[in-house]
Amino acid sequence: MTLESQILQAVQRVLPENGEPKPLHAPVFQGNESKYVQETIESTWVSSAGTYVNKLQEDLCSFTGINRAVAVVNGTAALQLALFAAGVEQGDEVLVPALTFVATANAVSHTGAVPHFVDVEESSLGIDVSKLETYLKQHAIVTSEGSYNKHTGRWIRAVVPMHTFGHPAFINQLRSTADRFHLKIVEDAAEALGSYEGGRHIGQLGDVAAVSFNGNKIITTGGGGAVLTNNKDMADKVEHLASTAKVSHSFEFVHDEVGYNYRMPNINAALGCAQLEQLPFFLKTKRKLAGQYAEALSEISGISFIKEREGTKSNYWLNGLLLNDPDMEQRDHIIKKLHDHQILARPVWKPMHYLEMYRDMPKMDLTQTESLYARIINLPSGVM
Amino acid sequence: MTLESQILQAVQRVLPENGEPKPLHAPVFQGNESKYVQETIESTWVSSAGTYVNKLQEDLCSFTGINRAVAVVNGTAALQLALFAAGVEQGDEVLVPALTFVATANAVSHTGAVPHFVDVEESSLGIDVSKLETYLKQHAIVTSEGSYNKHTGRWIRAVVPMHTFGHPAFINQLRSTADRFHLKIVEDAAEALGSYEGGRHIGQLGDVAAVSFNGNKIITTGGGGAVLTNNKDMADKVEHLASTAKVSHSFEFVHDEVGYNYRMPNINAALGCAQLEQLPFFLKTKRKLAGQYAEALSEISGISFIKEREGTKSNYWLNGLLLNDPDMEQRDHIIKKLHDHQILARPVWKPMHYLEMYRDMPKMDLTQTESLYARIINLPSGVM
Ligand SMILES: Cc1ncc(COP(=O)(O)O)c(C=O)c1O
Ligand SMILES: Cc1ncc(COP(=O)(O)O)c(C=O)c1O
Repeated sequence: MTLESQILQAVQRVLPENGEPKPLHAPVFQGNESKYVQETIESTWVSSAGTYVNKLQEDLCSFTGINRAVAVVNGTAALQLALFAAGVEQGDEVLVPALTFVATANAVSHTGAVPHFVDVEESSLGIDVSKLETYLKQHAIVTSEGSYNKHTGRWIRAVVPMHTFGHPAFINQLRSTADRFHLKIVEDAAEALGSYEGGRHIGQLGDVAAVSFNGNKIITTGGGGAVLTNNKDMADKVEHLASTAKVSHSFEFVHDEVGYNYRMPNINAALGCAQLEQLPFFLKTKRKLAGQYAEALSEISGISFIKEREGTKSNYWLNGLLLNDPDMEQRDHIIKKLHDHQILARPVWKPMHYLEMYRDMPKMDLTQTESLYARIINLPSGVM
Repeated sequence: MTLESQILQAVQRVLPENGEPKPLHAPVFQGNESKYVQETIESTWVSSAGTYVNKLQEDLCSFTGINRAVAVVNGTAALQLALFAAGVEQGDEVLVPALTFVATANAVSHTGAVPHFVDVEESSLGIDVSKLETYLKQHAIVTSEGSYNKHTGRWIRAVVPMHTFGHPAFINQLRSTADRFHLKIVEDAAEALGSYEGGRHIGQLGDVAAVSFNGNKIITTGGGGAVLTNNKDMADKVEHLASTAKVSHSFEFVHDEVGYNYRMPNINAALGCAQLEQLPFFLKTKRKLAGQYAEALSEISGISFIKEREGTKSNYWLNGLLLNDPDMEQRDHIIKKLHDHQILARPVWKPMHYLEMYRDMPKMDLTQTESLYARIINLPSGVM
């Protein structure tokens, strides 16, 4: 039997057959969604002020154990504000994995900084820390005010590890590299709500993190995101920038820096509160699904199922398999075969340095990113 | 009787006494809000794809008579994308009235361009077109590729008239100045949904316009906004930029420029569809309220009520009065007096060139802006 047929059969054994197409991820509303949203309409508090925004922030703090959460319009905005809070300014450089969703690089661009692409490694699908360390030793000059790229002359202010599909990147190891080069760690945790490294929720080990509540994420607010941080100054800065940098006054309109309209509306926060209540159930269900995939795919040679790294707990937001060898043609055959049977598998994102607008950005050797691009296939992962 | 007491009495005659504080503006949900929002939750289509986003866009086109509408996360984002669609780039200058809400200038900053502040005139509270024309003749050099500021060397790409409180600015007159200096007209119509100039809805006369559906606007989506334009290329550009500049492909993730996550979520669009159905009723009610204020305030000397300009129809989003003479102390006395009686009046926004971050931007003489800042008082204007 061809590889694509073997995979199809295995996936079909896992996914319930109901004649419907199997999307990669779809939201599930089985809790208080209607009730809470309805309340915001009845109270007319649907917009920026409202109790659900505060509740969502508090609930996120309880869930993650992180001191402060600021709810915003989406994950991209959360990341942009987190970068500002980390001190990133126009004309700086920010280290970003080349294997990521485009929003990671875009958020850097939106601050006026330049994404500088770094490679990933296979066990975490996140930044290859030792490769990064070696690279920075060669290409960055450390000064008392920070490090700069010796080729471009630009300050390198931050590094943005991304927790791919919910699998924790190596933040502990990254810390010592970041410290040595005076870099802030801004975690792109868009996909990682409910993921843990050594018992601590993602976002605890970096300086500041951004999560997403987009429609395809583990919980959704329609569109939304949040900045999580234990650093009070950073949280205050994010809150200020997100609300047009308005200075408190009884009736005058005074703003003290260029701000944004990025606060999450209360109606979206209401949805989020209901979703967050169900997160433990979603996590359990997704872990079970991952286990089923792992088992069903275990006997097929030439591929492996992507599992959580030892010492970490993944939220298994998005399941995926790895071809043993990079092979775009094979990858696309498998995806097409699955699509033919209504299983909407997909490849990983096109690496950042392959995209037109990021082609000429600074980058290191990206061999592993390029290889993984030709090996990863994501599988339907919603709670069913 | 003191002026503040006379004004208090007049306003109290207009506003229903019910022991509640009178906010400047609060949303009213008396239609299909719950029903439509409920539908998005039941269908699970709360996020970026969904039928209400399309419906809201179509309904906006029908209502305004403008060919294309693109629903986005808020008015600030709408303005930023409209500026991009008009060809504004990093390092350009954009002409912006100094008398506006900070978002107008911020949206320009978010594109990487520099706001260049221009003065307003009293009858429309919008840009003083003849003053602008004279100013540009002195300070801008016209070339075949556009005009540039002869002092800064930067291209001046666009002008952003703002329709203050819903009162139409002089776009017809602005057109000839804009054409002479090769400027695009990007209307900040955040406050002007339901306002008309010579029978044509706001946004018809400029190149592209941005409206807001923030919680304090004439209709609300929680947070939201839309770009309106008759120009297909501009609309396509806005749509593309708003959805991460993703290029259509059956499963690959390809993006061809630095994009944004600015699409309006479907749950917010659902609220907007219900609100838009009630807009004719809101307009009627607000016009009636404006008439009552006009009458109640008509006999007080030293002030006048702000009325729609001849040949235009204002949505009377926010009512206001004008002191005959600029007097900050008097203005604040009146506001405090009203606040003491739970009437949450407020002054107009602090002019842009008074704000820290915009102090050093290029600007013309701003006498009228400065004078109006010390004369305007806004009054509670919600549908009651
Ligand atoms: C890795 C990554 N970063 C950033 C984002 C941006 O989040 P959002 O879509 O909420 O803007 C996403 C999700 O879309 C993502 O997967
Ligand atoms: C004149 C003006 N421009 C822009 C905006 C921005 O709209 P939004 O608050 O939806 O971002 C507003 C409203 O807040 C406004 O009044």
